[in-house]
Amino acid sequence: MMDATKYAPGYYPVPAGYDSWVKKDHIEKAPAWCSVDLRDGNQALIVPMSLEEKLEFFQMLVKIGFKEIEVGFPAASETEYEFLRTLIEKNMIPEDVTVQVLTQCRDHIIRRTFEAVKGAPRAVIHFYNSTSVAQREQVFHKSKEEIKQIAVDGAKLVKQLSEEYEGNFLFEYSPESFTGTEVDYAVEVCNAVLDIMQPTPDRPMIINLPVTVEMSMPHVYANQIEYCDKHLKYRDSVIISTHPHNDRGTGVACAELAVLAGAQRVECCLFGNGERTGNVDAVTLAMNLYSHGVDPKLDFSDMPAICATYERVTRMHIYERTPYAGQLVFAAFSGSHQDAIAKGMAYRKEKGDHRWTCPYIPVDPHDIGRTYDADVIRINSQSGKGGIGFVLEQNYGYNLPAKMREALGYKVKSVSDHSHKELSAGEVLHIFEEVFLNKTKPLSVVEAHFAQVNGITATVTLDMNGQRKVITSVGNGRLDAVANAIQSATGMEFHLETYSEHSLDGGSTSRAASYVGLEWGDGTVTWGAGTDTDIIVAGVHALVSAINNK
Amino acid sequence: MMDATKYAPGYYPVPAGYDSWVKKDHIEKAPAWCSVDLRDGNQALIVPMSLEEKLEFFQMLVKIGFKEIEVGFPAASETEYEFLRTLIEKNMIPEDVTVQVLTQCRDHIIRRTFEAVKGAPRAVIHFYNSTSVAQREQVFHKSKEEIKQIAVDGAKLVKQLSEEYEGNFLFEYSPESFTGTEVDYAVEVCNAVLDIMQPTPDRPMIINLPVTVEMSMPHVYANQIEYCDKHLKYRDSVIISTHPHNDRGTGVACAELAVLAGAQRVECCLFGNGERTGNVDAVTLAMNLYSHGVDPKLDFSDMPAICATYERVTRMHIYERTPYAGQLVFAAFSGSHQDAIAKGMAYRKEKGDHRWTCPYIPVDPHDIGRTYDADVIRINSQSGKGGIGFVLEQNYGYNLPAKMREALGYKVKSVSDHSHKELSAGEVLHIFEEVFLNKTKPLSVVEAHFAQVNGITATVTLDMNGQRKVITSVGNGRLDAVANAIQSATGMEFHLETYSEHSLDGGSTSRAASYVGLEWGDGTVTWGAGTDTDIIVAGVHALVSAINNK
Repeated sequence: MMDATKYAPGYYPVPAGYDSWVKKDHIEKAPAWCSVDLRDGNQALIVPMSLEEKLEFFQMLVKIGFKEIEVGFPAASETEYEFLRTLIEKNMIPEDVTVQVLTQCRDHIIRRTFEAVKGAPRAVIHFYNSTSVAQREQVFHKSKEEIKQIAVDGAKLVKQLSEEYEGNFLFEYSPESFTGTEVDYAVEVCNAVLDIMQPTPDRPMIINLPVTVEMSMPHVYANQIEYCDKHLKYRDSVIISTHPHNDRGTGVACAELAVLAGAQRVECCLFGNGERTGNVDAVTLAMNLYSHGVDPKLDFSDMPAICATYERVTRMHIYERTPYAGQLVFAAFSGSHQDAIAKGMAYRKEKGDHRWTCPYIPVDPHDIGRTYDADVIRINSQSGKGGIGFVLEQNYGYNLPAKMREALGYKVKSVSDHSHKELSAGEVLHIFEEVFLNKTKPLSVVEAHFAQVNGITATVTLDMNGQRKVITSVGNGRLDAVANAIQSATGMEFHLETYSEHSLDGGSTSRAASYVGLEWGDGTVTWGAGTDTDIIVAGVHALVSAINNK
Repeated sequence: MMDATKYAPGYYPVPAGYDSWVKKDHIEKAPAWCSVDLRDGNQALIVPMSLEEKLEFFQMLVKIGFKEIEVGFPAASETEYEFLRTLIEKNMIPEDVTVQVLTQCRDHIIRRTFEAVKGAPRAVIHFYNSTSVAQREQVFHKSKEEIKQIAVDGAKLVKQLSEEYEGNFLFEYSPESFTGTEVDYAVEVCNAVLDIMQPTPDRPMIINLPVTVEMSMPHVYANQIEYCDKHLKYRDSVIISTHPHNDRGTGVACAELAVLAGAQRVECCLFGNGERTGNVDAVTLAMNLYSHGVDPKLDFSDMPAICATYERVTRMHIYERTPYAGQLVFAAFSGSHQDAIAKGMAYRKEKGDHRWTCPYIPVDPHDIGRTYDADVIRINSQSGKGGIGFVLEQNYGYNLPAKMREALGYKVKSVSDHSHKELSAGEVLHIFEEVFLNKTKPLSVVEAHFAQVNGITATVTLDMNGQRKVITSVGNGRLDAVANAIQSATGMEFHLETYSEHSLDGGSTSRAASYVGLEWGDGTVTWGAGTDTDIIVAGVHALVSAINNK
């Protein structure tokens, strides 16, 4: 049963005066990225990754361009311990990549963590303890002072062991459950930790202010970040990091607004993997920057391959509507969207524009290894002439006149509506061929000979339901002459309303495609198309097809 | 290939002075909700819904509590036309529900729309045209004035036909692609439409400012809404509506910040269905309000049933990490999270708290028809003693001492790590039983008789690898006496470190469960558990099991 009186906002807004970030309208520079896929992402999987899978994932992260990678909580799991030792002992960590390990502020866990990380060329020791009101009361049964002391004692031990162990260590502290913590108290704890660690501009320390659970609207979190930005000590020696989860569906907004408010670093996972609703999605964050013209410093140019590896090793499925990466995010089924996209693409081609401004498609699918034909225009009963025409042209070269596209559109939509399914490009072609192309019944033109006499004179051999007839007629062009011959032979009354043609394949042996729209005495319009290596024959096929469609 | 120079921000920020919304930290009252599942949602499906499926979906939306439902674009699809006629002619629209139909500002489409909607007890005619720079240039090849004229002409025809046709009509206008439109121009177009429609406070008109494509950060959109809030004419007769898509993954943030900035109504879809990355998710928006103590006026108390119907009729899959609704969003696999949740649940029970404050779980899963045992604590190699103990207790009633939970935790994690899979509650029980419960080899106690002499005197018949032995020994309690007997018979040296017991099933015929931890001469600790209807027998079983674990 739903009963809203059970709930109240559980976060602690900061005082007025910490919202100057709202004046900025976009992010001008990529933050430092830290992948937490191998930790937060892995711990959220129904089946965590094996050692081999973690190695493969690590290498993919490196290839994408992550320079900081949290590789696990080595004191808490045998696999994570071994994984870290493998990376170190097999020299698998590139020079420009820093690995990061997570540890609670507990004596034996910190010690075990240093055992795991010893000899690393460069590693961030990320220590944390929970500081929220709920955790203090319900889990730890400790006062504010006692909780702060856990952090301070942890910091002291980390500092001491970092001097005793071989390795190049940097440090990160998180007041875990920051979003449920009084912000001034969180700052007090962080400052007490900083007093121990004594960071310098040359050896800065990361202070990570996680959205462990999303509890507020994203701008409230941004204000909290701005408050911390103003109140943390050693500010020029501190890198403020954000680590949003997505419980309220606003993880991306939290990360982005936090960056405006002073966060310099983002901990994130590919495709928003991570516990519960996930960690903030690295792909969305990076591609959002990209779509604003900012180099994200992460490379998703082969998104399909990244998606495939991710799905295989995590055994998760990338949701169809995940920004930039989902199967359906470039898809347009609806007629008006397809029409605008087709026109936008044509406009872009015509103008030779460098800048991408195509309606309905935020980034060029080609940039990330997606295709236009398979991904963008898809055909079902919601589709329209623009999309259907685009599919025919893109895949088979048929460039139908606008009004004929409309006629084909009705046919295609009706087939999809009644068969209740999406249609492939091949199925659209099949409908086009069956309804419009080279139709020879009941009427066909067996032969047509032309002479340049009185304009054009055509001698046409017709076949009507098996009966042959030869007629000679004149016209102001070859097609017109044939049309007149057919009218005089049959008594039909029509008017050649639309005619267009183009070559189909390119090259001198190319086939031609012709399209004819006829307006009849009763006001109706019919359409036909014809193909042949000879342009005149193609036109006659189109004319005859349009007649046969009456 | 990724090349960020192809992109630049494509939105139009408003001047300074339209960000007063940032001072508010949460939404105090649910906005009006309009479901667009049957339009935007349906048009984004690979296979659009059939008439029957649309009817079922409509009835579900009514049951959830939607009072405004966009039912389709009846002029664009046969199925949508028939669906609307069915709703009207079969009197399926409840008195307190308003249906809404979408139409472009095109003469024949508006006319066909009125044909479709005639006789509706109450309907919103939602007309739109595209106003963005990209659409004006690339799709329509028209000037600002010409595009405005399309809107004005559309408004005039809608007004005229609404007077000619039978029915109770309200109106909505959308400057489609608002987020790519100069905001002052969008206001100018909307005001021109309002001048035609002449809304009054009694018959207000909806002005919908859609995030047709997400192009900016969410606060930029909120500023745009605040600007429109201040500059739209007939403001007391206008309902500002928002309609966010999710291309940048911030659709929820756009909707929520827009509401702070003056939007009074939200168009949304269940589970974020909708074209490309989807329309903003109605479930997340409603549940976000709920988690802040605000009645959302939508009822998701049977979320599993809603999910099942949605998945069946849309043929879409609800992503596992979709806030509030996904299969994994309450799941905790990690030890520290499980521990905190188990303690939070215990704290809540003990204190009898009404307010929900449990760590890591934003809302009580029970409120929306989810369960604790199947959904929250799940066991794999990342899990810890807290979660494993919780699962055993929740499902089978075994309440192990804290240190014994740790011992069981190591066993369970190791099984999961090596078998590389999640473990069910039954599998955890099986490990517990196999490792700790009622172990009779190599040692068992065949009989034990007690007398209250010198404290307690026990006469114990032991079986050791098939050899029987009877010993008498004393102790300060029955279990102590048996322990002493075993030590004197075997020469073992241990100390009864932990003992606890509880009834298992409730009622007078209940079985008891006992737990024994022994500390041995060499400093090691072993654990055992025993069950029996007799509490003493259960204790002896536990003791013997702990001995057999040496």
